[in-house]
Parts: sequence; C-alpha cells; structure tokens
Amino acid sequence: MTERVVPAARKTYLQGARPDVRVPMREVPLTNGDVVVLYDTSGPYTDPARETDVRRGLPALREAWIAERGDTAPYAGRAVRPGDGGRGAPVREDVLPRRPRRATGGAVTQRAYARRGEITPEMEFAALREGAAPEFVRDELAAGRAVLPANVNHPESEPMVIGRNFLVKVNANIGNSAVASSVEDEVEKMTWATRWGADTVMDLSTGRDIHTTREWILRNSPVPVGTVPLYQAVEKVGGDPAELTYEVFRDTVIEQAEQGVDYMTVHAGVLLRYVPLTARRRTGIVSRGGSIMAAWCLAHHEENFLYTHFRELCEIFAAYDVTWSLGDGLRPGSIADANDEAQFAELRTQGELTRIAAEYGAQVMNEGPGHVPMDKIKENVDRQQEWCDGAPFYTLGPLTTDIAPGYDHITSAIGAAMIGWHGTAMLCYVTPKEHLGLPDREDVKAGVIAYKIAAHAADLAKGHPGARAWDDALSDARFGFRWEDQFNLSLDPDTARAFHDATLPAAPAKTAHFCSMCGPHFCSMKITRDVRRYAEERGLDGEAALGAGLREKAAEFRAAGGRLHLPLSPGGS
Amino acid sequence: MTERVVPAARKTYLQGARPDVRVPMREVPLTNGDVVVLYDTSGPYTDPARETDVRRGLPALREAWIAERGDTAPYAGRAVRPGDGGRGAPVREDVLPRRPRRATGGAVTQRAYARRGEITPEMEFAALREGAAPEFVRDELAAGRAVLPANVNHPESEPMVIGRNFLVKVNANIGNSAVASSVEDEVEKMTWATRWGADTVMDLSTGRDIHTTREWILRNSPVPVGTVPLYQAVEKVGGDPAELTYEVFRDTVIEQAEQGVDYMTVHAGVLLRYVPLTARRRTGIVSRGGSIMAAWCLAHHEENFLYTHFRELCEIFAAYDVTWSLGDGLRPGSIADANDEAQFAELRTQGELTRIAAEYGAQVMNEGPGHVPMDKIKENVDRQQEWCDGAPFYTLGPLTTDIAPGYDHITSAIGAAMIGWHGTAMLCYVTPKEHLGLPDREDVKAGVIAYKIAAHAADLAKGHPGARAWDDALSDARFGFRWEDQFNLSLDPDTARAFHDATLPAAPAKTAHFCSMCGPHFCSMKITRDVRRYAEERGLDGEAALGAGLREKAAEFRAAGGRLHLPLSPGGS
Repeated sequence: MTERVVPAARKTYLQGARPDVRVPMREVPLTNGDVVVLYDTSGPYTDPARETDVRRGLPALREAWIAERGDTAPYAGRAVRPGDGGRGAPVREDVLPRRPRRATGGAVTQRAYARRGEITPEMEFAALREGAAPEFVRDELAAGRAVLPANVNHPESEPMVIGRNFLVKVNANIGNSAVASSVEDEVEKMTWATRWGADTVMDLSTGRDIHTTREWILRNSPVPVGTVPLYQAVEKVGGDPAELTYEVFRDTVIEQAEQGVDYMTVHAGVLLRYVPLTARRRTGIVSRGGSIMAAWCLAHHEENFLYTHFRELCEIFAAYDVTWSLGDGLRPGSIADANDEAQFAELRTQGELTRIAAEYGAQVMNEGPGHVPMDKIKENVDRQQEWCDGAPFYTLGPLTTDIAPGYDHITSAIGAAMIGWHGTAMLCYVTPKEHLGLPDREDVKAGVIAYKIAAHAADLAKGHPGARAWDDALSDARFGFRWEDQFNLSLDPDTARAFHDATLPAAPAKTAHFCSMCGPHFCSMKITRDVRRYAEERGLDGEAALGAGLREKAAEFRAAGGRLHLPLSPGGS
Repeated sequence: MTERVVPAARKTYLQGARPDVRVPMREVPLTNGDVVVLYDTSGPYTDPARETDVRRGLPALREAWIAERGDTAPYAGRAVRPGDGGRGAPVREDVLPRRPRRATGGAVTQRAYARRGEITPEMEFAALREGAAPEFVRDELAAGRAVLPANVNHPESEPMVIGRNFLVKVNANIGNSAVASSVEDEVEKMTWATRWGADTVMDLSTGRDIHTTREWILRNSPVPVGTVPLYQAVEKVGGDPAELTYEVFRDTVIEQAEQGVDYMTVHAGVLLRYVPLTARRRTGIVSRGGSIMAAWCLAHHEENFLYTHFRELCEIFAAYDVTWSLGDGLRPGSIADANDEAQFAELRTQGELTRIAAEYGAQVMNEGPGHVPMDKIKENVDRQQEWCDGAPFYTLGPLTTDIAPGYDHITSAIGAAMIGWHGTAMLCYVTPKEHLGLPDREDVKAGVIAYKIAAHAADLAKGHPGARAWDDALSDARFGFRWEDQFNLSLDPDTARAFHDATLPAAPAKTAHFCSMCGPHFCSMKITRDVRRYAEERGLDGEAALGAGLREKAAEFRAAGGRLHLPLSPGGS
C-alpha cells in the first residue's frame, strides 16, 4: 500500500472543540524556520504514528458522532445476491462483517441538521480543514450551496465540504472494467489518488467483483466515495439496458447505500423527449449512464424511471445521507456539440430535480460537461447556478479541444481551471488515457496533479482567502534559492527534485545560489537580489522612484563611487 | 536527425501563383476516404522526396525572392572575433562560407513592402498556409497588427505570419547554457520542436560556441529563429552587466543579423526609473535580460542604452528585416507580482517604442508575462493592444500558479490558452523543467504539445475559421470507432497509439467497435449510434421531438412492436 510520506512533510492535527475532532493537515517545515500548513486528503496512511491494514480497514472516525445523534439504527441489511458481483460472477465473500445503519425517522443528512441550526462534528471538521467558520459551513449546507457527502455507513471518511465558497475540490475516477484490473489494484489506486490530493474518488467498476471491490474501497477510503449505481444495475440484468427496471435500480441503490457510498450519480434528467435532440449531434450521447437511460426510454417508450421515481429515491438518499450527483447524461462529447439544446434541456430538468431533493432534505450536486471550447465555458456555470439554485456544480473537465488524445489531462485542465474560477465546486479529473484506455498508477497521478493545478489556479483567481499563501511561500523559496523548500512545497516534490537533479545532480547544487538555467556565473534572481539590496540601502523603493527622490539619490550614488559591483563572475572584470 | 514522418501522414504542397511558391502541408488520409490537411512546421525533414544534410543546411527557399527585389546586396560582413564564441571560448570555424546581405537603401522589411501595397512571395506563402487572402496578410502587416519575421539572411525559412487575426503560434526556446549541452544537441532540439509544431524557435544559448551553434541552427531551421542578443553581448564582456556598452550590443546585433536571426528580444523598455519599482516585489526581476539592463542602469546611473539608442537600432533592424520583439524585462516572476506598477510602466514604454519602430518600417512584437492568475490575464492583452496599437502580443505562458514546479507546462498552458483566446498572437512555451533545469528532448516535446493544445484551444475560442474542422474530423473518427484515424489525427499519434495499445494491444482491437473503457459488451458510443439510427428511421430529430410530432411517433413505435433491440450483449437477454 501507499504509505510513504511526502519528503520532509509531517502529519499534524488541528484540534476541534470536541476531543475527537482532530483534522489532519500536512505541515511542511522550511529551512528558514517557517512552517507551511497545507490541506491533506491522504488519510491515516501518511501518519507514521498510525498503523493501517487494508484487510481491517480504517478506524471508524465518525462512528460515535453518528451513533450519538440517535436518529439511525443498525439493521440486518440486504442479503448479498448472486448478481451483485457483476455479470455471471460469484460475489467474493471475503468482506468484513458489518451491520448497516439507516434513519429511524426523518432525514439524517448534514443538510437537514444544518437547516435545524445544528453544527455537527462533521461540519466543524470540514470548517477547520477549510479555515472557515463552522457556522459558515452550516449556512452553506442549509442553503444547498454546499454539500458534505457523509453516508452514515462510511464512518471511515474524513469530512469535507464541496461548494463554490470553499476550496475547489478534485475527484479521481477509479474502478475496474470488463477488460482489466483487480480489487487490490483499485484500492491501491484510491490511496494513491488521495496521496496526491484527490478530495473524493468515484468507483466506476463495471467488471467482476463490483460489490467486493467497492466494499474494500469504502472500508479503506479516507475520502468520500461516489458511484454510478446504474453501471452495476445494468450488469445485474445481463448488460441490456432494455431489461432494466426501477426495482433493480432501487435494489442497487440500497445495496450501495448500505455499503456506505457517499454520493451517487443518477441520470434522472435524461427525459424521453430529450433523446431525439441528440440525433443530429456530431457525437451523440457519450455519457455511459446517459446512453443506458436513452436506450431504456426508447426501448420502452416510457419516461425515464429515475425521473418518475425520483421522490422515492430522495427518501432513500435522505435515510442514509447519500448525496445526489445529478448526472449530465446528455453532456457534449465533442467541441461541436457544446452548449446545445439537448445539454441545456437536461440542465433545466436538473434544476427541477434539485428543488425536489431539497424538499426531502437531501444533499445535491449537479454534474456538468464534458467538451466545451473556452468561449462557451462560463455560460455553463452561469446557467447551472441560476437554474439549479446555486447547488454545487461538479464538472468533467471540460476538454477545450478534441485534437489531443493522450493529453486530455491538459486539454481539460485548461477548461477545469476556467470553470472552477467561474464557480464550479468540484472538478472530475481526466487522465492522459481518456478516450484511449484504462488509467494506470502513473495516469492517476498525472490526472490528479493536473487537476490540483486547475483547482488551485481557480482558488487564486477567485481570490479565496489563504490560497495565495502557498504560492507566496514557494515563490519566496525560489527567489531565496532555498531549493529544498521549493521541492517540499511543490505539488509533487519527487518530480521537482528529480528534474533539478537531472541537470545538477550534486548535493551542493541544492544549496547553491544559482540554478542550471543560467549557470554559476550569471543568475537573474541573484542580480535582482543585488538590485534590491542596493535600492534598500539607498532608500530607493517604489515611492521614492516615482517622486522627486530619485534624482537626489542618484547624485548621492554617484558621489559614493557611481558603480555597483555585482559579484557575478569571480573571474570577470 | 529527426527525419521520421508522422505515421500515415503525407507531405503535400499548396501551389502559389508563382511556381516557386509551394507551401508544405501535412496531409492525413483517413480510412473513410477523406483527407485532412493540416498546417505543417516541420520543414523538408518530413518530406521523404527530399534529402537533407545538416552539414550542408537547408535549401535557400527565399533566395531568389530576396535577390529579385534588388534592394539588398551581399557584402563582406563583420569578421568573426575571438569573443563571439562565448566567454574565453575560441570560435569554432566549421561553418559554411556565406556573404551576408543588407539593404542598399531604405527598409527591406515585409512591413515596408506591405505599406507600399506589394504582396511579396513571403506574404503569399504565409497566406496559403493560413487559408487567408494574400491581401489580408499584406494589410495586417502594413497596419503593424501582424509580423512576418524574415531576415534577408535566413533564406532557408518558410514564411509564416504572427498576428491576432491569424492562427495562434507557438515558440520553443532552445539553446545551451554554461552548464550543459552541445551544438548538435541544439540543432536536433530545433528539428524536434518543429516536428511537433513549433512555429518559431528561440536560441537562448549562453554557454560555449554561441556563434557557431546559432549558425548551424539558422542554416537548418525551416522556421524563424529568435534570439536575445544581450545574452551574447554580456558574455563578450566577461559576464559583468556593468561592463556592457552600446557598442558591444550593436556589434552583437549586426553579427546576429548577418547570420540571419529573424527576430530579437531587446529589453529597451526597462527604464532607470522603473527599476526601483521592483524593489518591493516578492520576486524582483526574473527576466534575465531585464536583470542585466537593471544592473547596468544602476551601475552607471544612466538611462538604458537600448532605449537611448533605439532609433539607431531601428535602422539596423530595417536594413536586414529583423523583427523587434520588445522584451518585458520587468515581467512578474510570481503570482504575487502580477500586473503591478513596474510591469505596466514598462508596457507603456513598449508602446512608445512600438510607434518609433513603425516610423522606420520595422516589424514589431511585444513580449508579455510571466506569472499571472487567471483573473488578471485579460487585462494584460487589453492594455497591450491599446497601448501598443494592436501590435502582436507574444507571451511567456503565463503560469497561473506557482505551486507546481515540474508541471509548469500545465500551469502555463492554462494561462497561454486563455491569453491566446483574448488576443495574444504567439505563445512562448514553457517546459516541465521550467525553474528546475534544462529541457531535454522529452521536455521540448512536452512543452510544444502543451502549447499546441493551448494555441488550438485559443483558435477554437476565437472562432478562427477552419480551426474546428480538425476537432470535427477527430471526433467523427472517435465516434465512428476509426481508431487508426483517431491516432493519425492526434497532435501526437505515437502517444495516442501507445496508450491505446497499453490496454488493448492486439491489432484487431484497433478496428473493434468498442474501447477499453467499457469493454466489448457495452459501449456508450455504440448505444448512441443505435439511438441515432432509430431516430432517423422514424424521423425523430430535434424539431420533431420538440413539436407535437413525438407523441404520434411514439404511438407509431408502440404499434410496431414497442421494443428496440440493442445488440449490446451477444450472450445477454
């Protein structure tokens, strides 16, 4: 398992009002004595003081909080069925024995508590992580402008909040497929993704051992886990969308809610009448869930059963605190199809569903595109915010061009950064393998890093308080030739260090006051520091220069010798 | 040398009005019989019908055009001097014998010709590449809204145009440093960069063999070559900025102009009174040229000699058709310093210099930042366009966050795409090694690809006519499961193919109607095609669906059996 710690970083905890609210952070000690404290998604795996064992799962951090509220009770739970593992696959029974919980009365959602004015330990925890007031987290949840995905059956998760007024979050998709990969691979991908900063993971498994893979991911995941229950449901009916029924879907939602899935993508907005709107598209329907529901609608000539049964599903979601992630089944799959009638028709229906979910106290996010050229990105957020009452927007990219398969983490990081700036709350990553194959370990890392960049660039552009402190600390280290600090403050210290060492491998180079671009005899940053020292010694700063002061200072300078010796070149004149 | 051809792509030529105007393009034949023709920067190296030999250089494509104009004449040229190679290094004399040309009368710039209403073969060539009218190219050049960098001593170059009303261009920096690399390495980096789409290269060598390295790059470069003459000038005076003189600088400009450098970065806007404005910055002056001039100004307490001698330099530039690239010596080196007083003070001076250069008929670009958060990007272009009379803007990135050393091709591709959309004409690439070390071959490729993505995303967002055809062709191939076409249309076919093969290596998989994400039993694109067929068969398109037609069609459908069989799962029900 991934248990290594970022070089030089330490695990630290922020203490909440109650003793068991201890929020993990990453502390980076600098060589100048400063300490930079960063948000940390990596869970207990990066705390050397804690032992972890994948086959036992993580400690149930939230168990007492959930139990204390007294509004849920354990019960026998749905029995595992033969089809749960995937098509034709037996269910692997090597899971830990658990009794799931569900509400004994009304909604047990963080939103319901927030509306009653309560600040739960989960809210306090998330607030401390964000550097926000617990009351602010509560108010944003109550208003539906933020969600705190926290299924009562995933007590292992470290609470976090998703909303436009908080740090922009990143989701990493993992999951096996019919073609490749295993349970162990997927659990490892989850810990690896969170190690690099994924705020949530989605398990999109469609192959064998679906149930068991998800179980192990949940028991070991310190971050909220999302799924698309439709993927498992369609496997249960042999892979034919036409054979789907609401009953099979509902059964799958309960199966997954009992396991602890924190949020579920549901394509309830793909209405029968919208499907033909895609017929003239360049790339039709590219969402897997959207395609399944479109096929079902056409096969039966009935309205989408997810839409017609939406209220019943809201009751289930509210009984476990599963957060809605209303899917965008008609999202554009190419630049040509961006912002079209089909896409926006579904978005309007997402708005209608968002309001219905609110009646039930359920938490709601809205999913968004896809492939969108830069000039059409802002319109997506503006419409979503308006039509969906400010609910958190959760977008896939968007990719800003179709011409670079193999580099879609970059084509989409551009769109993700922009849409995050304009108000998207969570960005679903895209890996370099998008459109081409299944992401491996390196692809997962590349995708997470690209999206952490996009999310942070968005935080900066939004003027999020505190976001710039990280950039400033790193720029100071760079300017001060504190190479080790520059590496340790990087999103990816390993790569930064390796790239530096590729040109200047020797250890002394890391303390040298020059870098490989300009070499030892010349360095622009060094010159600047000399200029600064010169200016400071002589009182030449911005004000002085703009005023009449400069001329006098210049005369003074000339009187003092008139030449600044820049010790750039030991052998030079 | 890099002589391999993109798999399946063919070299083709667009024929101009005169027989010797033949514009190379990349033709991608598709399996459906279509042919996609793409802009091609790779020069004769990718034409199997042509032999190339680095030690003989490329054929002098433009030689006849230049000679025919009768406004230049060959002359003996400046004799090579001992200091030309770099500090303490003898000049390697293994260069081809050449006699440089210069103007015999007035300006021999493409701008001067354009102002006289002439359409040169260079303009026609560039127009064909862009799919624009030659008159339009001429008019944009005359107005100073575009440049066509084409030194009379670099007849090997294939003419191209840089301006906001043309395709967004990408520059790749190469060049050795005091620490590492050789002549052969740099020539190889140039051909490699243009192979992936670099529209120009800048030779920023600061180490040994500066003169000879540049000579070989020029003799072999099919794209315009830029330099920062100050880098060589400071080497000539032993590396101490204080020892610089206008005479040494002027001598270096002539040396490089005679070699054929097409555009030169000159930091003439770093005025003495602006230098102290940087003293309070987080990261001071990070531009190497800016630092050198700031150091010189402070050492002598005189105004920047590049500014005070600007008119004389304009005469030299106009006599060889060297394009000005007015440097941004005070560009921000961190998010904290973006859009500050020092930066914009210099930009105003760039505007003043742009107007002076116009008096001399010289071509001018303006360089821009640097490190800028997304919310401050547009202001950079808006001010530059206003203050510099619409001259082409040429920006480095900008990087949208400082926290990701090792990934600055991504942090900056975000900013580059946005600034390109808002009107920047050329984007200077940033490689993953930025801030850390010297780019190697893989870094050059990563930087160029990231920037081709940014440039194309900008073209799309600007609505450049024709830009979307590429995306559409690739999306069609993707939707039609034409895997080979999808690879061949990619910015990087090798990587796209390798990524696909990593999951599904077998050859049949490339013709299979499924991909590795969903496996053989299920595919959203396949479902969509079925939906489309269904809708088309029944006349269900957008209009019908929105109107009253749907209900009738549905009844019709039910009468006809009411069930659409989707052949998704051969073994399923």
